Amino acid sequence: MPQAHGYAAQSPTTPLAPFSFERRAPGQLDVALDVLYCGVCHSDLHTARNEWHNTVYPSVPGHEIVGRVTAVGELVSKFEVGDIVGVGCMVDSCQRCAPCADGLEQYCDNGFTGTYNGPEQGTGANTYGGYSNRVVVRESFVLSISHDAGDLAAVAPLLCAGITTYSPLRQWKVGPGHKVGIVGLGGLGHMGVKIAAAMGAHVVLFTSSAGKREDALRLGAKEVVVSKNADEMAAHAGSFDFILNTVAAPHDLDAFLVLLKLDGTMTLVGAPASPHPSPGVFNLIMKRRRLAGSLIGGIRETQEMLDFCAKHGIVSDIESIRMDQIEAAYERMLKSDVKYRFVIDMASLKATA
Amino acid sequence: MPQAHGYAAQSPTTPLAPFSFERRAPGQLDVALDVLYCGVCHSDLHTARNEWHNTVYPSVPGHEIVGRVTAVGELVSKFEVGDIVGVGCMVDSCQRCAPCADGLEQYCDNGFTGTYNGPEQGTGANTYGGYSNRVVVRESFVLSISHDAGDLAAVAPLLCAGITTYSPLRQWKVGPGHKVGIVGLGGLGHMGVKIAAAMGAHVVLFTSSAGKREDALRLGAKEVVVSKNADEMAAHAGSFDFILNTVAAPHDLDAFLVLLKLDGTMTLVGAPASPHPSPGVFNLIMKRRRLAGSLIGGIRETQEMLDFCAKHGIVSDIESIRMDQIEAAYERMLKSDVKYRFVIDMASLKATA
Repeated sequence: MPQAHGYAAQSPTTPLAPFSFERRAPGQLDVALDVLYCGVCHSDLHTARNEWHNTVYPSVPGHEIVGRVTAVGELVSKFEVGDIVGVGCMVDSCQRCAPCADGLEQYCDNGFTGTYNGPEQGTGANTYGGYSNRVVVRESFVLSISHDAGDLAAVAPLLCAGITTYSPLRQWKVGPGHKVGIVGLGGLGHMGVKIAAAMGAHVVLFTSSAGKREDALRLGAKEVVVSKNADEMAAHAGSFDFILNTVAAPHDLDAFLVLLKLDGTMTLVGAPASPHPSPGVFNLIMKRRRLAGSLIGGIRETQEMLDFCAKHGIVSDIESIRMDQIEAAYERMLKSDVKYRFVIDMASLKATA
Repeated sequence: MPQAHGYAAQSPTTPLAPFSFERRAPGQLDVALDVLYCGVCHSDLHTARNEWHNTVYPSVPGHEIVGRVTAVGELVSKFEVGDIVGVGCMVDSCQRCAPCADGLEQYCDNGFTGTYNGPEQGTGANTYGGYSNRVVVRESFVLSISHDAGDLAAVAPLLCAGITTYSPLRQWKVGPGHKVGIVGLGGLGHMGVKIAAAMGAHVVLFTSSAGKREDALRLGAKEVVVSKNADEMAAHAGSFDFILNTVAAPHDLDAFLVLLKLDGTMTLVGAPASPHPSPGVFNLIMKRRRLAGSLIGGIRETQEMLDFCAKHGIVSDIESIRMDQIEAAYERMLKSDVKYRFVIDMASLKATA
């Protein structure tokens, strides 16, 4: 069994620290890779600290992985040693249910296997994520990263933040002529702005802090609305085809629902720890509006997203950190003090391990 | 100006009582009709008692009207004296906006004119509804009722309860092979069961009272689930394509959202006076579910619904009342003591007026 090392939380209250463990030997359908970069997602923090009350320790987070293939199983056909590849939030699923057959592994009827904290198919063992020097992943959950994808560190966040925003934008057929709102300018929101703009939509960014105006325009928004300004909000009443709401903190959904036009949809991609105030049914009824949810995206769609981003020159805006800076990064993330995603340069792990 | 008489509320606290008033003389595009039957909708009661805080008195309710044409304007082409016709919740709209152009007058950007309590286009005068001996309505808001529509008293509720349930079932493309839930077996719910069954769906009726089981099966449901029985509910988790929720009282939406399958939708057609408990975002995200609203239906779709019902032999289950029984009917309606719609036989008005 190949040795691996990374950073793990041993309990909800212990900081992430160096941790050595074993990875499975690559099977016939497996791809082994050295992790080059791993993005830092809010889910990593929630899991490390057991905030969702389901963490299995030790916990090695990380599901925005870009790496280089070091070995492939004999039945692997899509990848070769040396390829640059990506791994996102999932490393396996049942492969037998209707959603899996439809390429919607994220909605697997039997539950997909998370890149970390997932029970491994078959063994039920805990999975360890990308805060480590190497991973072994079933070929069908490995993504190709093209040579023109751009800065590989900045590609890593596409594997979660990118697909989480791309998937609902695609599902609701965002394109030229559409007026699209993005609520929140964080790791998810800044990807939503870039991708929706590249899809040809007229993008309006909603933020609670006026200070983000310039940045939002730079990222591709055509307008910026400070959501606490009632007059600014009212000027957009009934005008949006689609709103992607990336804010996980509880907030007034009605303030955005009333901005949708007839048959407009607002999709939520963040789940708050405590409920949002209950949205008004009247606002849904009066213009046949819809409130929806969306969870990451399937593997086929993730590949499509990576290719789309490469074609349109889209990567994440990132701040590179060393592995041993992770706890400080978490603290800054909690204060929204990051533009817009931390990415661990895994070369730094070798230096500290 | 032709004299009309009907029943009106003069204030929130005075019972409905005989009231004489003037109708406009039919214009070139108007149809005048004698009201034969008028269904009794919860909205009538809410308006008569100013429970929505927008009632203009005197208030003559009634928007489930079946009548016989007595006169037509010179430019009217679709109707002749003697025709049996229907009038629903709307008698006019701006006819200039995009929703009106799309036949979605109920979502008119400038607000449709309600059959009662609406400001008349142009004059802004209060409109008086179907609790009266005659109405005058613009031709384009008058519906044809075919000779094989069935008992005309029982056709009247189709004009509101029928279209309110038909429209979302059509919008979400309910048909053979679909598992469809109807929540609540009242005036709306019993129409939803009949219509969804006629569309070919496998209909499951959710009710809080086990006593409605036999009736629901008779109306076309294949299964009946008592919504307070957690085991019965759990057996249907993740299995519904669509749920039409007709219950206006605040209740736990999550109990039904979790019954939807991937990409399933629950449409609300009742607006509670106080909010529902806030639905869980997690339930929307995990299977990409949607929570939507819907408001009656457009005129074109209302005609389609009437023709569909005539073809499938669908009318409302009704209890006929006299005009002077309206207050007693309201009290019984408040106790859900009606199977499933009261309809006023307007011949009784002549006797009392």
